[in-house]
Amino acid sequence: MSDAPDALSHVRADGAVHMVDVSAKQVTARRAVAAASVLTRPDVVELIAQGKLPKGEALAVARIAGIMAAKRTPELVPLCHPLPLTGADVELVAAGDRVEIRATVKTVGVTGVEMEALTAVSVAALTVYDMIKAVDKAAVITDVRVLEKDGGKSGPWRSAQARTV
Amino acid sequence: MSDAPDALSHVRADGAVHMVDVSAKQVTARRAVAAASVLTRPDVVELIAQGKLPKGEALAVARIAGIMAAKRTPELVPLCHPLPLTGADVELVAAGDRVEIRATVKTVGVTGVEMEALTAVSVAALTVYDMIKAVDKAAVITDVRVLEKDGGKSGPWRSAQARTV
Amino acid sequence: MSDAPDALSHVRADGAVHMVDVSAKQVTARRAVAAASVLTRPDVVELIAQGKLPKGEALAVARIAGIMAAKRTPELVPLCHPLPLTGADVELVAAGDRVEIRATVKTVGVTGVEMEALTAVSVAALTVYDMIKAVDKAAVITDVRVLEKDGGKSGPWRSAQARTV
Amino acid sequence: MSDAPDALSHVRADGAVHMVDVSAKQVTARRAVAAASVLTRPDVVELIAQGKLPKGEALAVARIAGIMAAKRTPELVPLCHPLPLTGADVELVAAGDRVEIRATVKTVGVTGVEMEALTAVSVAALTVYDMIKAVDKAAVITDVRVLEKDGGKSGPWRSAQARTV
Amino acid sequence: MSDAPDALSHVRADGAVHMVDVSAKQVTARRAVAAASVLTRPDVVELIAQGKLPKGEALAVARIAGIMAAKRTPELVPLCHPLPLTGADVELVAAGDRVEIRATVKTVGVTGVEMEALTAVSVAALTVYDMIKAVDKAAVITDVRVLEKDGGKSGPWRSAQARTV
Amino acid sequence: MSDAPDALSHVRADGAVHMVDVSAKQVTARRAVAAASVLTRPDVVELIAQGKLPKGEALAVARIAGIMAAKRTPELVPLCHPLPLTGADVELVAAGDRVEIRATVKTVGVTGVEMEALTAVSVAALTVYDMIKAVDKAAVITDVRVLEKDGGKSGPWRSAQARTV
Repeated sequence: MSDAPDALSHVRADGAVHMVDVSAKQVTARRAVAAASVLTRPDVVELIAQGKLPKGEALAVARIAGIMAAKRTPELVPLCHPLPLTGADVELVAAGDRVEIRATVKTVGVTGVEMEALTAVSVAALTVYDMIKAVDKAAVITDVRVLEKDGGKSGPWRSAQARTV
Repeated sequence: MSDAPDALSHVRADGAVHMVDVSAKQVTARRAVAAASVLTRPDVVELIAQGKLPKGEALAVARIAGIMAAKRTPELVPLCHPLPLTGADVELVAAGDRVEIRATVKTVGVTGVEMEALTAVSVAALTVYDMIKAVDKAAVITDVRVLEKDGGKSGPWRSAQARTV
Repeated sequence: MSDAPDALSHVRADGAVHMVDVSAKQVTARRAVAAASVLTRPDVVELIAQGKLPKGEALAVARIAGIMAAKRTPELVPLCHPLPLTGADVELVAAGDRVEIRATVKTVGVTGVEMEALTAVSVAALTVYDMIKAVDKAAVITDVRVLEKDGGKSGPWRSAQARTV
Repeated sequence: MSDAPDALSHVRADGAVHMVDVSAKQVTARRAVAAASVLTRPDVVELIAQGKLPKGEALAVARIAGIMAAKRTPELVPLCHPLPLTGADVELVAAGDRVEIRATVKTVGVTGVEMEALTAVSVAALTVYDMIKAVDKAAVITDVRVLEKDGGKSGPWRSAQARTV
Repeated sequence: MSDAPDALSHVRADGAVHMVDVSAKQVTARRAVAAASVLTRPDVVELIAQGKLPKGEALAVARIAGIMAAKRTPELVPLCHPLPLTGADVELVAAGDRVEIRATVKTVGVTGVEMEALTAVSVAALTVYDMIKAVDKAAVITDVRVLEKDGGKSGPWRSAQARTV
Repeated sequence: MSDAPDALSHVRADGAVHMVDVSAKQVTARRAVAAASVLTRPDVVELIAQGKLPKGEALAVARIAGIMAAKRTPELVPLCHPLPLTGADVELVAAGDRVEIRATVKTVGVTGVEMEALTAVSVAALTVYDMIKAVDKAAVITDVRVLEKDGGKSGPWRSAQARTV
């Protein structure tokens, strides 16, 4: 099977980690979409959504935190290459007993941006948790995953899950 | 029911967000434990664990990323108060089809450290994903949650899930 | 006149700068309020305020940017002491031809927080400028100033301007 | 009138903010010049200028703070794209009752650098304020504005004010 | 011999690293002094010292870089605890074929500040190297070391070298 | 002699520092190798190397700290241009009375990466010091230097020392 690995790319033959040399990789337009869910209670989701209040910023703060975190991915994930992000969108939908989060990140660069998209949804989810922790300590962040990935030598990829979400 | 919320602490009456005033809160020793799982394939977990290599740093890099991220939580989560962390431990166990991650964070301060513990496990999980993404694009980070919380006015808290993990 | 200076606190007798030793200063509750204005055109202010849109986040992003910047003041202003902020509020009012910004920052610490409050309003103002620059390159950020300061040995201070704003 | 806006670029049709997709924009040499003023008292300006001291670093620290802040603009201003700065100059002139600050920033990239130039003068001004706050709490930072902008599709732009400064 | 170690403090019994729990340590005033040297050529030292130029900022930029880096030590050194610095001084003396650097850092906290002082002199030295690299690629940073350490349970410590420098 | 300097590149004719304009420089593949040594005692080196422990992460943490610091060089060294690193390797060898550190950093950009390589070895060395400071306060970081530099207009450079190390 072609996907069967025989080595982790960040790990050298002796087991030490390094930031892989991508000097020779081609600069292309790349895009990645990631998602995450925050599971809580319907009464808490109601509070987050709060359409009645004049300034309803609970979801805005998570969106902005996600976008800002995407830009700082290489500071957080030790072996990630720095990339000039050319776009970032974070969507949050609060409904039922959960907040669904989706981030789309773009670059014109030498490596993919799935780590940036995953970092965006993770930090947006942490920010939602932070907002609701006083009312629900038991909330859980789950299903943090890549849905789609485009650009680069390997071309487009869609997760099986992406098709059904 | 006593846990039923009537407002989110970071959101003012008009819906705008702010960093809550904790000037009057007491400085006490506080501790939080959080966990996360990275779901992948057994052959990938085998690669991560790699006992045979002289330097097997795949889990070390995730541990260190988690500890460093804990210290930067207030830069990532917009309404989080800065806290002087007094200790941080990150455990990773790679077995079966997954990597289980657990972080314990301590402070002597005015607010709890569950956001720091959650940030530690989230970034450790992202780092694991980054290590394996070349061999498994479909890995999923899941069950990011608080297990335990001690200190402060509200006293000790254990998640129902914590007892069985 | 008692306010007449004979030396800058950050500058030593030989003219070199240093981060002043505050080890012996007392920890007290402190608060500072700062303000800034962004001058633009009425039609641009209209766009910012946009009550009609379902998600009106233009002012939210500036508020959050201001709060986050307050926490990073000692990274930006070279001789500023790090302080554990215990609260931060940023207000924005878009009306007429301008956006008025006001930040209130609190700490329990050894130095005042006027730099944090000034940094908050400055970065909030930069964020407003960033939002409108495509439609008004000639916008001006002005009247960045401290309005009030409490706590510490010197006690409360109000700017003459503060009384009339 | 061609400059009349009908939408803010960072705000989507539904009012949510995002980091605009600039993937298709052309890489060109770009330059921006911004300015700011710190208004204080003549006796304070005298202290800052201090020609007599062997090490007169009061203006140097503001210059360096401004240059360093320019590089961190996308960390501060949430929707700003990261850009590889190729040059930065900050000028400070202390005379009369004020310190005049001017920053020139350059890049070879896909977006303009006016936010970087504005951030440079803002943080240089905050640093001047920090130096003098012990002797003048009532100092004001004012006239933070873009003077010139070159490069990109829209070509050169000069503020009306720039011609007379 | 009493100084003979039997374990590294940051390394647990199983060899994994962690940020040691210092929750129970006492808050005391602490101070550390560190030093470093940059070895180059006399003609280069002459350029750095440049008394003739109206603005001689070559050493100022290294001083400021050192002070700013001290504040960011826990972001750089993974297992370092965050500490509220209460003072920082960096001295640079350019003479003969070298620049001698010395940093004094203070805190009122639970751990020593030798890492902060060492980080200050290291980054000040890197900044000196950066200034001179166009004229001397072969410069060497050397003798980065702690000279003195005060405060905490273990009391004052002086390096043998400190007495003779 | 062609290497004799007549000016420091970061210092303008009037002595003020600036970030040099490199807008017109060519983008080429560049590489730099730097080294550093931490001098301690043989019994301490023994502790660091610790082959017997199941998780021997003492050197891994220094390696990762070095790689992460390389990416943050322009935040630390004030006049350094930001560069998109395309690879980073840090080697540590603990033997005898010392730990030898070597970093190789790569970019495809407009300026060299010797500052990034020097920052990597410096922070790796500081991290080693941090690990051993409880058992050897008198350890010294020494011989921080560039060994090799490739790419750019000036072509390859080797230090005299590099040939014999």
